[in-house]
Amino acid sequence: MELSDILLWRYATKAMNGQKVNSDKIERILDAIRYAPTSNGLQPFEIIVISNNELREKLQPVINNQQVVTGSSHLIIFAAWDNVTPERVNRVFDQVVAERGNSQGLVDYRQFLLMKHTEQTTDDNFNHAARQAYIGLGFGLIAAANEMVDATPMEGFDPLAVDKELGLPAKGLRSVAMMAVGYRDAENDWLVNLKKVRRPVADFVTVLK
Amino acid sequence: MELSDILLWRYATKAMNGQKVNSDKIERILDAIRYAPTSNGLQPFEIIVISNNELREKLQPVINNQQVVTGSSHLIIFAAWDNVTPERVNRVFDQVVAERGNSQGLVDYRQFLLMKHTEQTTDDNFNHAARQAYIGLGFGLIAAANEMVDATPMEGFDPLAVDKELGLPAKGLRSVAMMAVGYRDAENDWLVNLKKVRRPVADFVTVLK
Repeated sequence: MELSDILLWRYATKAMNGQKVNSDKIERILDAIRYAPTSNGLQPFEIIVISNNELREKLQPVINNQQVVTGSSHLIIFAAWDNVTPERVNRVFDQVVAERGNSQGLVDYRQFLLMKHTEQTTDDNFNHAARQAYIGLGFGLIAAANEMVDATPMEGFDPLAVDKELGLPAKGLRSVAMMAVGYRDAENDWLVNLKKVRRPVADFVTVLK
Repeated sequence: MELSDILLWRYATKAMNGQKVNSDKIERILDAIRYAPTSNGLQPFEIIVISNNELREKLQPVINNQQVVTGSSHLIIFAAWDNVTPERVNRVFDQVVAERGNSQGLVDYRQFLLMKHTEQTTDDNFNHAARQAYIGLGFGLIAAANEMVDATPMEGFDPLAVDKELGLPAKGLRSVAMMAVGYRDAENDWLVNLKKVRRPVADFVTVLK
């Protein structure tokens, strides 16, 4: 399927039928998220993948009781770094050095980022990390559709309750978005046959020639 | 090309050769961004596309003097709504009603969003809008690579200076990210042959079975 068709095929699925997505597909979707580019290559977020039914039932009330929390095959949670600490920056750079070799440019770049994120507030660092997670969300949504797997991006949840249930504070993470993946239950999905609505080009794109 | 290959092919191009990307490809890239899903379908951002050389030369100093600002074919700027106002929410819902017809559900949904965004601070509304723009950035980056067009995501710029130059404050917009699209100048790009580094799966993905 062409990408343009994939983009029209996908929609924020509101009801899923519980069918499991095979592990190869899940792996490719997760890998697409992992390969998403992020600011300075820090990848300042992690993903938590839940297929466990009991845990998803427990989470459902704090995710707006959405059907897809339990109707999906896997629930993928995007959790941003609560802060960009020197330890985290150093860990990323240590890996880059190990894989590419060191250089003066890398040494300077590391120092620049260590200073930048120490000077910024924790809130600014978290918000910046959260934005990067959304690039990953974009990659994940396309990757799912490319596998003909339905996906529902979600922000309507109680992040503190989710974080607590998943023990994220101890890991220095905060949930910012989710993506349920599975297969549509077309008969029970009010959105499946509705026209996809997008702002017209003239209202969304300004071209300066 | 398979999506997995596309993800490996793309990289944050550091030098481009000035070659123009044909308009069909640009249109498909912009359409992918426009078709990206956003929270409640508000699409709370716009994109400004600049091919004009003079304007790009003028902007280059406030975009960290990056070569791709002028070396690219087009510079695509993601500008988030500076606030989510009742006018903007109503405009989106008016379009949905026009295209799908009205329903009590839509009436209630509109009221809920009008209330939510009035209660939230301007900063919260802007930050929320900015995150949505990053989903679009993710879609745009994949769409470019799918056309074998190189792309450079960028955050390292002076947003106030860019906004002023483009007259964004008068439009209620704030630049949050950019994407230069064009063709790599492999001989002058220090990054082109370096190994793509990503955090290992074990460090990035937690699976709860």
